[in-house]
Amino acid sequence: MAGKYSTIHYHSYLKLDKITGAQELRSVEVGQPAHEEMLFIITHQAYELWFKQIIHELRSVLKMFADDDVDERNIGTAVGRLQRTEQIIDLLVNQIGIMETMTPLDFLDFRAYLFPASGFQSFQFRMIEALLGLPEVKRMTYNNHHYAAFFPEDQKGVLEGIYKDGTLFDAIQDWLERTPFIKHGNFDFLKEYDTAVRDMIKKEQAAIDVSDYLTDQEKTMRKKMLGDTNTYFQAVLDKDAHDKLVADGELRLSYDATVAALFIQLYRDQPILHLPFMLLINLIDIDAKLTTWRHRHAQMVLRMLGKKVGTGGSSGHQYLADTAKKHHIFTDLHNISTLLIPRSSLPALPDDLVKDLSFYYSNINPA
Amino acid sequence: MAGKYSTIHYHSYLKLDKITGAQELRSVEVGQPAHEEMLFIITHQAYELWFKQIIHELRSVLKMFADDDVDERNIGTAVGRLQRTEQIIDLLVNQIGIMETMTPLDFLDFRAYLFPASGFQSFQFRMIEALLGLPEVKRMTYNNHHYAAFFPEDQKGVLEGIYKDGTLFDAIQDWLERTPFIKHGNFDFLKEYDTAVRDMIKKEQAAIDVSDYLTDQEKTMRKKMLGDTNTYFQAVLDKDAHDKLVADGELRLSYDATVAALFIQLYRDQPILHLPFMLLINLIDIDAKLTTWRHRHAQMVLRMLGKKVGTGGSSGHQYLADTAKKHHIFTDLHNISTLLIPRSSLPALPDDLVKDLSFYYSNINPA
Amino acid sequence: MAGKYSTIHYHSYLKLDKITGAQELRSVEVGQPAHEEMLFIITHQAYELWFKQIIHELRSVLKMFADDDVDERNIGTAVGRLQRTEQIIDLLVNQIGIMETMTPLDFLDFRAYLFPASGFQSFQFRMIEALLGLPEVKRMTYNNHHYAAFFPEDQKGVLEGIYKDGTLFDAIQDWLERTPFIKHGNFDFLKEYDTAVRDMIKKEQAAIDVSDYLTDQEKTMRKKMLGDTNTYFQAVLDKDAHDKLVADGELRLSYDATVAALFIQLYRDQPILHLPFMLLINLIDIDAKLTTWRHRHAQMVLRMLGKKVGTGGSSGHQYLADTAKKHHIFTDLHNISTLLIPRSSLPALPDDLVKDLSFYYSNINPA
Amino acid sequence: MAGKYSTIHYHSYLKLDKITGAQELRSVEVGQPAHEEMLFIITHQAYELWFKQIIHELRSVLKMFADDDVDERNIGTAVGRLQRTEQIIDLLVNQIGIMETMTPLDFLDFRAYLFPASGFQSFQFRMIEALLGLPEVKRMTYNNHHYAAFFPEDQKGVLEGIYKDGTLFDAIQDWLERTPFIKHGNFDFLKEYDTAVRDMIKKEQAAIDVSDYLTDQEKTMRKKMLGDTNTYFQAVLDKDAHDKLVADGELRLSYDATVAALFIQLYRDQPILHLPFMLLINLIDIDAKLTTWRHRHAQMVLRMLGKKVGTGGSSGHQYLADTAKKHHIFTDLHNISTLLIPRSSLPALPDDLVKDLSFYYSNINPA
Repeated sequence: MAGKYSTIHYHSYLKLDKITGAQELRSVEVGQPAHEEMLFIITHQAYELWFKQIIHELRSVLKMFADDDVDERNIGTAVGRLQRTEQIIDLLVNQIGIMETMTPLDFLDFRAYLFPASGFQSFQFRMIEALLGLPEVKRMTYNNHHYAAFFPEDQKGVLEGIYKDGTLFDAIQDWLERTPFIKHGNFDFLKEYDTAVRDMIKKEQAAIDVSDYLTDQEKTMRKKMLGDTNTYFQAVLDKDAHDKLVADGELRLSYDATVAALFIQLYRDQPILHLPFMLLINLIDIDAKLTTWRHRHAQMVLRMLGKKVGTGGSSGHQYLADTAKKHHIFTDLHNISTLLIPRSSLPALPDDLVKDLSFYYSNINPA
Repeated sequence: MAGKYSTIHYHSYLKLDKITGAQELRSVEVGQPAHEEMLFIITHQAYELWFKQIIHELRSVLKMFADDDVDERNIGTAVGRLQRTEQIIDLLVNQIGIMETMTPLDFLDFRAYLFPASGFQSFQFRMIEALLGLPEVKRMTYNNHHYAAFFPEDQKGVLEGIYKDGTLFDAIQDWLERTPFIKHGNFDFLKEYDTAVRDMIKKEQAAIDVSDYLTDQEKTMRKKMLGDTNTYFQAVLDKDAHDKLVADGELRLSYDATVAALFIQLYRDQPILHLPFMLLINLIDIDAKLTTWRHRHAQMVLRMLGKKVGTGGSSGHQYLADTAKKHHIFTDLHNISTLLIPRSSLPALPDDLVKDLSFYYSNINPA
Repeated sequence: MAGKYSTIHYHSYLKLDKITGAQELRSVEVGQPAHEEMLFIITHQAYELWFKQIIHELRSVLKMFADDDVDERNIGTAVGRLQRTEQIIDLLVNQIGIMETMTPLDFLDFRAYLFPASGFQSFQFRMIEALLGLPEVKRMTYNNHHYAAFFPEDQKGVLEGIYKDGTLFDAIQDWLERTPFIKHGNFDFLKEYDTAVRDMIKKEQAAIDVSDYLTDQEKTMRKKMLGDTNTYFQAVLDKDAHDKLVADGELRLSYDATVAALFIQLYRDQPILHLPFMLLINLIDIDAKLTTWRHRHAQMVLRMLGKKVGTGGSSGHQYLADTAKKHHIFTDLHNISTLLIPRSSLPALPDDLVKDLSFYYSNINPA
Repeated sequence: MAGKYSTIHYHSYLKLDKITGAQELRSVEVGQPAHEEMLFIITHQAYELWFKQIIHELRSVLKMFADDDVDERNIGTAVGRLQRTEQIIDLLVNQIGIMETMTPLDFLDFRAYLFPASGFQSFQFRMIEALLGLPEVKRMTYNNHHYAAFFPEDQKGVLEGIYKDGTLFDAIQDWLERTPFIKHGNFDFLKEYDTAVRDMIKKEQAAIDVSDYLTDQEKTMRKKMLGDTNTYFQAVLDKDAHDKLVADGELRLSYDATVAALFIQLYRDQPILHLPFMLLINLIDIDAKLTTWRHRHAQMVLRMLGKKVGTGGSSGHQYLADTAKKHHIFTDLHNISTLLIPRSSLPALPDDLVKDLSFYYSNINPA
């Protein structure tokens, strides 16, 4: 029926009967039309459209990384789709600004009719959190209920399926753990890094000690800023320390994945590492942008309700503000920054490793 | 059935079955799934959602100004709704950036299946243009067809109805024409303005002539920049000249409305004029932002297709670029700027007029 | 020398020798050129340019409201300047996104040379906080030092002068307290509001109790959402309760100013109240946008440093995150939302008050 | 004196004495203080700061591509710096919105004092255009003067030097022309592409001809949309046709560079081509964003002046609108879209070429 060469009209292609026919104002239904309810509905519907798009992107990226052997030709595509996801989240943040053109007094004109609907009931948003890999144990409860309690069985099943099949966090962690260059012939990245860190700290400390420019107090501050192998660098230099932090819930990313992420960040200019580097940045960015969205969302709720209780029965502002603080997923990638050292102190890579990290053509046809 | 105190769930309130169930990819249907078609559909659906919101706002503002006697308590609300419309158009411009994350090569994966659908077929967008008051004679044809030829009878009827009932341009023009303060007792604004313009020009020209700082060439340029009663100011100082320009299609806004818009801009600090001033700025802004949207839209089409012909059969880029140049509505409000003169040259308003322009309370209880 | 008719060139007018000659890279100075230090310097310089503009706007608005008798013709101008301030803060938030294109590894190339400079030392930003009215007692300390300890005597003097002369918070509070319409002839707003709140609650509670749609648990939640005179509304219905909260540091805005702000929000459609309403929204917005800026700034620092100590010696992220939580100024205006009641429950205003709130002209020339 | 370990303060590091001491209002100087002149100055100064940053980025990228042998490890860095440049241009577009908060009447308060300064005199902006490679013959004249006539000798020298040393357009063209994979063993990309295009067109035309869904008129349109070897594809399939278009000024990019850009776009998923693909997109984006900036700038001038002549003596709006249409640099990269064909019609690459396009490691250690 619908052959490749059949014709199609804008209106039917986009199913506009459904899309623009889906705004039924409760305030109209109860005979108290409130102009602003249209904005309330349309903003939320636009959110859900974009949530669907984000899910579409995340699922496709997840699929690329689900195998034990990731096709390197896909990483550019994955980076593109995650960047798009970031742009969409930026748009969602902007949409909050549009919602805020509704004043609190306008909201009161129809708020009573919405009970007990709540943004907390957005199934697609839960899917996004699950696909990214928000750990179930970290999820805030809502009115003391587990988040899944709000969804029907089939939707609960979908959420459980995501965790069972593996989230993006899981897939990225596995992929990082398989990074082959960390030990390469005689080159042991961690050993070299350990030495470099210790040398750098020793040299800098000595320079600070003899500086004529600094007061004693400044020297102390300067060293504190420099850090120490017993502080910043400890967890990565000592697998046991790392594992203990994981066991305590302080860290989540495995030791091997952490080391690989550090290696990628430090040597990102090597051709084979550049797109992986961009990918890690994308994940950090998505996390940060979602946090901004939660923060702005919390602000909006505060503006609308002040200290009132939300239609869902919760203190919506507090719930959202808490998720902005706790619903992070890629914090450990974020914190790789702690472990970076200046390029001037970086261990040099041996020639054969540099070769492995570059393109085939360039090695066969040197300049 | 749906009483004020019945309960409602997020999912059913927002009719998410419809909203997130309205994405049927043609590429999937013909057995050649193209990942990016989802983005194409969702972006357009989001556009149509927001178009519906804009129509909701414009219709409500139009209603406020449809009567011969506009309730002054509504102008603040109208300003708020037009500002919201502006923010929505800004969002629509941002959405183009998201669409542009789809590369031209990705677009080719499903473009062939869309024939002959075209954004030109968006009925809601035509409604927005009509509600604002885009003159039918100015509309670009598309593939040599009148724009309405693309719509079924009932939609054509809606568009005709808008023009028949009066557009926002019409309503604002009528409202401006009724501005009561242009002649007020012995004060004749136009006469005072005429004198002020002539005095200002004479004084400035004299000062330029005797200036030691300027070369002769600079003096000439300086005077050109100053303008003349035979150039810039002619149309407003001479009703016949204005009416001729209207007859020739150079101007559209009536003489009386133009004079009132000028008066409002010049004396906007008077309390009764401030919200009307904001309203005029809103209309100018909406026009400008729609133009930016058309410009960006044309850019996007160029990026996707290069010089290829669009699915609707037109050279989409050229059509859009032309509408960006010609589909303006409030140009004459925009051009009031030409007629402004510095505050230092402004005719003073007589006390009784100042009183009429201020609040009742302040007159009864002077400071 | 510089007469009105002297000529001027773009370059000298903008003092571009100074502006584009003010980038001296420390990394170049010490012989280790770091490409990204330029971005670091220019972003901060652009911040400081815009801070100067914000100070220019805030000072001008403060001046308008400093007198006991605010000229009503100025309120539109004040609203415009505060809206501009908002747009500038939005821009500053966007600038963070540009700074974040510098990766943490790039930052390490010159970070060591910046010690102990810190954004905390921005005098202009302290001025902005002071002009808005950030209470000195609420300011976070920094490395256990009072913020003013970081500035030379003359700058400390400027900051103290702002507090002494009165901040925007002070001026707005005074202006609100002078609102003349709260008691008007026989109309006592607070009494009417009290009755309206009690009636509304009683009626709603009764309707909930008899509803067939709700379970008992839902009825309880619904009532919690409705609020009570002993909870939400208590502080405004009982001056002593309010004053106690002020004494305890829970509230800051005086009782009379709070009541006036509530009155303005509830009756904003009355002509004389509309611009004051917009002004209150502007102040709330500025507060919220500054908070977003602090939040994003904290995010950026976290991204750059991970858990490292900042160049200023503090854990920059934590400091900024704390100010995002605590450095609010207009929270009490924000929380007026708690006190709003639906329009359908609003006490009607007596005719003579409506007259006082409208324009002189409209009363003399009724439709 | 300024050793690595000397201390530095925020204020002196950023040379804030210069930066925030560079606002001298002409209106103040002539004794007619205009509040809004501060905004005018600061916005322009912020522009110039960011122009300096853009020049810093473009110069660094140009340097990477100036050699005959581009270090492949630099391409990721180049992509990052061009992306940053894009973000900065986005910011510059936003700044126009801030400038537009100044109303035309406010501008008149100080406009007369600015004569004959003009944004046209921005030397740094001319540098940006030159660095990107705006052809000198395409530059609009201004008041009938060549653009360089407005700059002193030393600045003219800098601009000439840029063209002499080679612009980014030149460097990218050279780099594209050196792409080694276009002919690879027995594989001749152009021959394969030619065949693929002809096959695709023949097959599609046949399918359209036999389609039951389409009317005759639709079949004609559908074929027009498909294109033909005599239209879209001619210039790339026929070097002479291309060279003639270059000679006529219709095209600018050389034949070999065009073919290479097409190859990169079509096979961007191959590892060695992905970053080059991103780089081409960046250049297209920068061009498009600069055009948006010019468009918005023209809009702003129209809003401020209406039909008045600008301080520089030109009809500023028209000049800017013309540059928005004509000052493009990478149009030919943009138009590569015309030449793309669906992935399903793409010629397969031979195994040994695929190998050359991939990483060394992956070839040595196949999955």
